[in-house]
Amino acid sequence: MTEITTTRLGAPAPVEQAGLSPVVPSTGQQVPVPAGAVRLEDGFWFERQRLNTDTLLDHCDTWIDRMGWYDTFRVAAGEEPHKPLQGKLFTDADVYKLLEAFAWELAQRPDPDREARFAELARLVAAAQGDDGYLNTYFGPKGEETRYTNLAHGHELYCAGHLFQAAVARLRSGKEDDLTRAALRLADRICEDFGVGGREGSDGHPEVEMGLMELYRATGRVRYLEQARRFIDQRGHRTFQHHPIGHEYYLDDMPVRDATVLRGHVVRAMYLTAGAVDVAVETGDDQLLGALATQWENTWARRTYLTGGMGSRHLGESFGRDFELPPDRAYTETCGAVGSVMAAWRLLLATGEAQYADAIERLLYNMIATSPNAEGDRFFYVNPLLQREPGIATEPGEAPFRKDTLRANWFWVSCCPTNVVRTLASLTGYFATVSDGSLTVQQYFDGTIDTRLEDGRPVALRVRTEYPWQGRVEVTVASSPGRFRLRLRVPSWAGAATVTVGGVTTPVQGPYAELERVWSDGDVVVLDLPMPAVVLQPDARIDALRDTVAVQRGPLVYCAESVVEAADAVDLDRFRLDVAGDLEVREAAGPSDVRATVRATGVIAPAEPDGAWPYRPVTAAASSPADEKVAIDLIPYYAWSNRGPSTMRVWIPSASAER
Amino acid sequence: MTEITTTRLGAPAPVEQAGLSPVVPSTGQQVPVPAGAVRLEDGFWFERQRLNTDTLLDHCDTWIDRMGWYDTFRVAAGEEPHKPLQGKLFTDADVYKLLEAFAWELAQRPDPDREARFAELARLVAAAQGDDGYLNTYFGPKGEETRYTNLAHGHELYCAGHLFQAAVARLRSGKEDDLTRAALRLADRICEDFGVGGREGSDGHPEVEMGLMELYRATGRVRYLEQARRFIDQRGHRTFQHHPIGHEYYLDDMPVRDATVLRGHVVRAMYLTAGAVDVAVETGDDQLLGALATQWENTWARRTYLTGGMGSRHLGESFGRDFELPPDRAYTETCGAVGSVMAAWRLLLATGEAQYADAIERLLYNMIATSPNAEGDRFFYVNPLLQREPGIATEPGEAPFRKDTLRANWFWVSCCPTNVVRTLASLTGYFATVSDGSLTVQQYFDGTIDTRLEDGRPVALRVRTEYPWQGRVEVTVASSPGRFRLRLRVPSWAGAATVTVGGVTTPVQGPYAELERVWSDGDVVVLDLPMPAVVLQPDARIDALRDTVAVQRGPLVYCAESVVEAADAVDLDRFRLDVAGDLEVREAAGPSDVRATVRATGVIAPAEPDGAWPYRPVTAAASSPADEKVAIDLIPYYAWSNRGPSTMRVWIPSASAER
Repeated sequence: MTEITTTRLGAPAPVEQAGLSPVVPSTGQQVPVPAGAVRLEDGFWFERQRLNTDTLLDHCDTWIDRMGWYDTFRVAAGEEPHKPLQGKLFTDADVYKLLEAFAWELAQRPDPDREARFAELARLVAAAQGDDGYLNTYFGPKGEETRYTNLAHGHELYCAGHLFQAAVARLRSGKEDDLTRAALRLADRICEDFGVGGREGSDGHPEVEMGLMELYRATGRVRYLEQARRFIDQRGHRTFQHHPIGHEYYLDDMPVRDATVLRGHVVRAMYLTAGAVDVAVETGDDQLLGALATQWENTWARRTYLTGGMGSRHLGESFGRDFELPPDRAYTETCGAVGSVMAAWRLLLATGEAQYADAIERLLYNMIATSPNAEGDRFFYVNPLLQREPGIATEPGEAPFRKDTLRANWFWVSCCPTNVVRTLASLTGYFATVSDGSLTVQQYFDGTIDTRLEDGRPVALRVRTEYPWQGRVEVTVASSPGRFRLRLRVPSWAGAATVTVGGVTTPVQGPYAELERVWSDGDVVVLDLPMPAVVLQPDARIDALRDTVAVQRGPLVYCAESVVEAADAVDLDRFRLDVAGDLEVREAAGPSDVRATVRATGVIAPAEPDGAWPYRPVTAAASSPADEKVAIDLIPYYAWSNRGPSTMRVWIPSASAER
Repeated sequence: MTEITTTRLGAPAPVEQAGLSPVVPSTGQQVPVPAGAVRLEDGFWFERQRLNTDTLLDHCDTWIDRMGWYDTFRVAAGEEPHKPLQGKLFTDADVYKLLEAFAWELAQRPDPDREARFAELARLVAAAQGDDGYLNTYFGPKGEETRYTNLAHGHELYCAGHLFQAAVARLRSGKEDDLTRAALRLADRICEDFGVGGREGSDGHPEVEMGLMELYRATGRVRYLEQARRFIDQRGHRTFQHHPIGHEYYLDDMPVRDATVLRGHVVRAMYLTAGAVDVAVETGDDQLLGALATQWENTWARRTYLTGGMGSRHLGESFGRDFELPPDRAYTETCGAVGSVMAAWRLLLATGEAQYADAIERLLYNMIATSPNAEGDRFFYVNPLLQREPGIATEPGEAPFRKDTLRANWFWVSCCPTNVVRTLASLTGYFATVSDGSLTVQQYFDGTIDTRLEDGRPVALRVRTEYPWQGRVEVTVASSPGRFRLRLRVPSWAGAATVTVGGVTTPVQGPYAELERVWSDGDVVVLDLPMPAVVLQPDARIDALRDTVAVQRGPLVYCAESVVEAADAVDLDRFRLDVAGDLEVREAAGPSDVRATVRATGVIAPAEPDGAWPYRPVTAAASSPADEKVAIDLIPYYAWSNRGPSTMRVWIPSASAER
């Protein structure tokens, strides 16, 4: 193990200067613009963040209460008698994720009632803490099991990590309170128990690493960094108990730095990656950082769905092998996407490479946005790309045990809703970065950026766009610091992007339009991203998608949804998309939360015989009768399953192979 | 609930007349020819049954001992102190399945050493039984848990059912011993505990129903029939605890008679079906029998792989939805195939329909034969139809926890090996039937049938064939009872079958060649089943197989296997089979246990770019450079994974769609 030298430890930013960011590395290619410096004023993410503020946060609070997950704290605090738990043993984490969301929310959109609610819950959490700093309502002196007796499956340190992230949100809001004090006491307890000379081992579910790292960054206490590095280093030696998918389930099959691709449980893999990037960055461990970047790249190229979702197997909620990407049994858990955003963001900050911002865009529009329904009272957990039969509906008020339902109010294991709300509450923290005299707009939105360059000079932009419906982005320099480099990301899906400044239009080379000059207030830059609907084909190695195509427009993946009760319902089992046909973008059509559909044409294939053995000798293709041309309107994937029972396909069989 | 009337109860055959058959219904369209009346003399099944006799049975005995699964009986009997169990809580069932296999084996191929081993184990089982007849080494007074406290997952009654089947094998061998007495005492205990006025509920894993039914048939004790019917009727009311795939996991989502297709855990579904057919037949419940036949037919048409295997999902070891049949993640557990043979055989006896014999043939050649390796020391548990990367190998002496490995010596959960050996030991009991003046050869083999027609007249046939390598079957009437109808099944894969008697060749209409006449000793019938290699295409609704083809010859499904270290290894990811090309049957080529390979031709597709986002805009098909023609030798699926690390495809992408 490399000794951490103090010179490499960097200097964590003091609380008052770190800004309201979930991740504040001490070094890296890019520095995050704080969430609070980016303000949404209209459009896609504005609407979703408003839904979060107005509805989703309270929905989660209500459901956590209803499930009795606050009660476990009251029991541990001695304020209530024991009650049977509704849900799994790691429900503390959902309380902490909601508190984290509240913290980001309160820092940006203060609300006295919510502040009071936060204080009440923070008090409760602190009351449940043991005298020695230990805190978990399931384990420990007041819980059902003895602490540290089930590290593989107990999620004990995992819960702690979520508390640390909530505390960081609070510290970066300039607060010290019951929650931050409880978090620091618990962090110290863990460092005592698992530090040098203490216990070996780590948690079956990574998370504590990333929590400790950010707590280190927020407080400067080096022991948290040392403990996080210790957890990372101890992983990968097959010490956890056997699992039906093997040790890779826990990412315990090999040391983090030896792996070349992500595997096992997707959320575990992504949380571990995020924490390991943090350790690599803060300890200057370029070998580790390089290994993590390679793992990400291989995973993105071979084990990722078009939506950015990951996880091909329901068993173990896990990655499959390379190119094993079944659309129907895609697990693609929402939490995996949240974890992927967290990992990609850290890699973007560390490397400055646009591929990570591209990944974040894909994940936000096609996974995060897909989870909540338009009303804000239901969430997807599992996100298939093919629904051959109408999916499993849940009753209002039902928290299903199974996760492969359509959107539900809540789940028996409900990690996803609280993960979505904390992501939406801190969303603007992922939109822009600064570096060395430059300001980069990494994600597009309608609103403002009001921040400082790395050298401290203030700068403000106004961004106007109808993204993701239109590819035109107008950036006005609202307050110029003089000379700086304005960088606008050109997503990888965009073809011939152009940028216009002062009436001069130039094609953009590379993944960023880079414009360095002495800017004046009022200067306007227009980035034009052509946004045709495009037919995509899968890599030939993806067996499950052979001879199908998908449609993407801008950052949005589209799908064919056939609503059972609709008058124009098409049998998607028989629809074959004409790849050579025109795709017509139709604005302001479709469901209410969709501003553009794509009309595609195709044919209906002959029906197969029912009730027969489904494997038959190949026959010469029957000269098909003049196929009836059929048009269908594709909708963005995020908007599916909002109109009643339906079937759905992202990947649509192509007509060409039928002939 | 319909009252069982004694007139419908039929008259179970007395022990001495029932014959050595696993299933002896009192009524039905066909009556089984006992296993002992069919003798194998050469060929495919002769070799496998000899492997069973010489190697597999002792292999299982050794491994059960090694895993400590006999020790649990010694502990329960008070003969040894408690030891930690290696394996799951239902290992009693493996002991019983091996004893069942021993019983069938001893009745046909007596062996004093094996008889002594059987007696020793039977004594041990009886010694573990409680004074009140209760018997389970995990539950009960001497076990770890209280009896009947975990019916959903405890497999308590499931283990009992396996004991009953073992006892039936013994009773039908004309023996009464420690095992049969223990079984009857336990059956009585269960009837007391779960009979009218007793406990409600049944076992999460069906099996006891079929065990009780055959014990009823073997003893005439009506209470066993009544109890089995009670278990069947009580199922389907969502009384078991929640499961990640829902109540269908246990087949507890709806009453057996209301379902239209099988679902949930495949082995549970098939065992339940088998037991329910038994109940339907013995109680004259035609509505139930009809429902079960419909369930089978829909399952066969929509939820079955080309190999006859079932189970599309690893999670819950379960069926998928209709047409969800991924080849790579096919679970297709060997035990599911054993259960399917048991269910199909009962439906064949009840209905006389050839489709069930077809199914049994498919399952025997492509699933049962696939499980053990040629050396007889390893077994497949999970049977995928696509191995994109070389599979997971296990060390000699390793009993893996995971089930998705290549063949292993044993498994931590090792239901499959003992299921295979009991099937092979009783195999000839599934080959022929009699009915109303007819004798039907349901499966082909090289050997003799020496039995009685339903009216008691003795009849003997000699069957000569090189099936499954050649489609010629020569049947000689060795001992004729005079007039009877000789029926020879024409498998559904056979095209223009002909039958030749006395120099006259006639085409066969329908699924059986039916030849009624006064037969003389020495009369010869030749059935000719044309056996070309045939290219098959999947139903268009099977998304996972789009634009692929498979090759079958006779009853054998073939596959492309690319052995990594072979000089002629082909990249199966890139091979495209030319559907219009000739298939050349090459005899006596390939692995040692294979007598015919099939040479197919195709091309190698261009390589895809590595490391790139795997979804790209559709481009006009590049005019491919003159593709190199490639020939590959397909081998029978059962023989794969015997030559070192390899990739494998049953379904091969077709070349046509690439152009």
